[in-house]
Amino acid sequence: MTSGLNVADAEILAQMASAIGADSVLKPDARYLEEPRGRYHGAAAAVLLPKTTEDVAHLMRICSEHRVGVIPYAGGTGLVGGQVSTDQPGLVLVSFERLNRIRVIDPDDNVLIAEAGMVLADVQAAASRVGRRFPLSLASEGSARIGGLLGTNAGGLNVLRYGNARELCLGVEAVLSDGSVFRGLKSVMKDNMGYDIRNLLIGSEGTLGLITAASLRLFPAVQERATAWMAVASVRDALELLALSRDILGGTISAFELMHIQGFDFLAETMPQISQPPRFQTQWAVLAEVEEGSGSGLEARFERLLELAMERGLVADGSLAQSEAQRHAFWNVRESIPEANRKIGSISSHDVSVPPSRIEEFLSRAKPALEALNSDIRINCFGHLGDGNLHYNVFPPLGRDRGDFENLRSFVKSIVHDLVHDLGGSIAAEHGVGRAKVPDLAKYAGTAELETMRRIKKALDPDGLLNPGAVIEVD
Amino acid sequence: MTSGLNVADAEILAQMASAIGADSVLKPDARYLEEPRGRYHGAAAAVLLPKTTEDVAHLMRICSEHRVGVIPYAGGTGLVGGQVSTDQPGLVLVSFERLNRIRVIDPDDNVLIAEAGMVLADVQAAASRVGRRFPLSLASEGSARIGGLLGTNAGGLNVLRYGNARELCLGVEAVLSDGSVFRGLKSVMKDNMGYDIRNLLIGSEGTLGLITAASLRLFPAVQERATAWMAVASVRDALELLALSRDILGGTISAFELMHIQGFDFLAETMPQISQPPRFQTQWAVLAEVEEGSGSGLEARFERLLELAMERGLVADGSLAQSEAQRHAFWNVRESIPEANRKIGSISSHDVSVPPSRIEEFLSRAKPALEALNSDIRINCFGHLGDGNLHYNVFPPLGRDRGDFENLRSFVKSIVHDLVHDLGGSIAAEHGVGRAKVPDLAKYAGTAELETMRRIKKALDPDGLLNPGAVIEVD
Repeated sequence: MTSGLNVADAEILAQMASAIGADSVLKPDARYLEEPRGRYHGAAAAVLLPKTTEDVAHLMRICSEHRVGVIPYAGGTGLVGGQVSTDQPGLVLVSFERLNRIRVIDPDDNVLIAEAGMVLADVQAAASRVGRRFPLSLASEGSARIGGLLGTNAGGLNVLRYGNARELCLGVEAVLSDGSVFRGLKSVMKDNMGYDIRNLLIGSEGTLGLITAASLRLFPAVQERATAWMAVASVRDALELLALSRDILGGTISAFELMHIQGFDFLAETMPQISQPPRFQTQWAVLAEVEEGSGSGLEARFERLLELAMERGLVADGSLAQSEAQRHAFWNVRESIPEANRKIGSISSHDVSVPPSRIEEFLSRAKPALEALNSDIRINCFGHLGDGNLHYNVFPPLGRDRGDFENLRSFVKSIVHDLVHDLGGSIAAEHGVGRAKVPDLAKYAGTAELETMRRIKKALDPDGLLNPGAVIEVD
Repeated sequence: MTSGLNVADAEILAQMASAIGADSVLKPDARYLEEPRGRYHGAAAAVLLPKTTEDVAHLMRICSEHRVGVIPYAGGTGLVGGQVSTDQPGLVLVSFERLNRIRVIDPDDNVLIAEAGMVLADVQAAASRVGRRFPLSLASEGSARIGGLLGTNAGGLNVLRYGNARELCLGVEAVLSDGSVFRGLKSVMKDNMGYDIRNLLIGSEGTLGLITAASLRLFPAVQERATAWMAVASVRDALELLALSRDILGGTISAFELMHIQGFDFLAETMPQISQPPRFQTQWAVLAEVEEGSGSGLEARFERLLELAMERGLVADGSLAQSEAQRHAFWNVRESIPEANRKIGSISSHDVSVPPSRIEEFLSRAKPALEALNSDIRINCFGHLGDGNLHYNVFPPLGRDRGDFENLRSFVKSIVHDLVHDLGGSIAAEHGVGRAKVPDLAKYAGTAELETMRRIKKALDPDGLLNPGAVIEVD
């Protein structure tokens, strides 16, 4: 697909500079060409920094005219290489960091229109200033930007209650491959004016269009909240605890996180400064949070749940956060596990989801299959139990370096992904396909599914200009 | 687009009969050719009654080979003519009524896989039998079928809390225009394996593929519920009441319905057997419902809300349902208004949404503009205030017949739709585009939006076989 593209040469870059200003066309700084896992290193003829949607449209028209490929770049936090061009130095990278204003914030209609370059934490803070909440929340929220979060349909901690990024977005504005502007910044909850282009753009990782702004849904500010840290013996018990929680706490459960004890060991080893809750005797811990309007008596209800769960033997030990500081300490442990994983260095990481009732089977089948490769391999599994999303990461034996196990990597990945596929799950749950999982998508998606995706890609980006090499290969 | 299609002649129908059985290829019965508003009367060479997805795939392969167009037919309750072929007697109508089994029902994973022909009320009942709830709810739930509900991305009463049909669907299976089967019956909440074909098929009204089955999300059974009927002086007060309700009742609000007094007059006139709550002195009434897990103290919280709202003058009068019978009586009034409207007979009906904060402006601008056409015109506005969806229906003066006002119809429609568009709303909120709104979509959607839709239609249904004439015209 990328074979027919041209290199963005000096003349083309000069055209771009004259369109959006010379100070907006830069030599690529190294930080734009790397990604957090260190697996890819990119290349680009230039980094472009548009300030407006019209800038993006103008750039895209130039790219279309000269058949130059475009890599969209938001916060750079993507974990599957969607933001990094690997083999095409002639492409241009479009960074959205200067397209970062709030266009509208309306607490009455519970809508915030943000440009693609806004950092998630800034959106959350803006919502909070008008007494509202934007519930998308994930470890990289201090750097991740709206365009990337929507491009990958990010998930995170609160999907159980609020849905993925796509469910939090009422409309998008996007620049299409020919430079035309899709103006879909609707802000109503019910809109069926033809095909759902919004959801097609969301999750397409910039391969069908460049999202420039989005209408985001706001929710009431949290008035009561309770957070608990609970020790559970097994995933089965954790799932029973979740079912019991749903009976008692109904729709108030905003997070239900599962963590294996391995994560706490990694954390103690690599980040001893992070204070951990007292160590449990069980293999697993759950961090659950509920939130609601005023007068909902949440804390008392959560206490009742804890008592009941302990009576039934579902929870071995547990405690409700007694202060905002303790709540933050609980969350800090959870949110630091990915960083600890990175410091240890995985052989292979997997962002998968399986139906919750199949998680035990997944774990009990995956472990022996992986240990057959190397019996001292270490596994850290954590994730969002409420929505079946597991981060199942495989590490070298204690004291060994992942570099010595590169040869195992594809085997590890196949074992995990085959099993997930077999159990009816997804091999790309919340991080996207990027470049890392292009072959996996081709392997696991159905024939009609792939053919439909290819037809759509060809229809909307016939020259293959948009993020070439990501998501899907078109012949 | 439909010009290149062939008539399904005796030979083609014989092929179909041999593929799916002669008892599944029928002469079209009148009931398949009509629609509830009586605006369209269709025609078809035959009605096909497949029993399995393979039957549908087989039929579609025959249609593709012979270039025969297909009208998908689910419950027949659609209000925009999507299920009725108007001008092409050679098409075949595929009714999904025999493809109506539950394939999977899993209360642990909160998933129900239903075939397209299942009636919504049967899905609700099946969920209820395993202690779960399927929250999609609308007036026609006793006849509407899953395929049609997803095809039109139906909304209904509980969108505020649970979202539209698309948000309640985790995956779909569909037969594509070439007879291939898209097997996307995933049942996980997080899945980003490439482009969002599921959401593209949902809401496409059978013009991109024929949905044959769907994974539906189940929710905890309701354990506490409270329902109130409240008199409000204005839409502004109703919106303030909604904001206050959100503060106090948080995410427990499942319905927040607004009704103008005109609806009660219509009801008294056409269906006097329906018992109405005592008549208020205000122009508007709100019917609100909250639901939650056990021990949430909802009734007490709702009472507190009512007191507070009356203190602040937002609610003139109101009562909480004291029994399930009273609750049903409240809902029966709300759910009978559409039927009363049909008995009166509208000049033009409109299914629109506007951002809630613009509703007052919409109403105050629409009325004088319409009264300028005829000062005795009657307007009945009701809808789902929480999501900004209004059913804004315009009726002839008392004692007159709508037949005498056919000449006003297009003017009425333009006034309403122009205004909705001007206010950033949607002219097709929850009923779809069907055949009725094809020109409106072409008029109000943006250039890039229409072009994108056309490209997708051409890419996925190059011969224009699927529901020709619905949603969008392709040259």
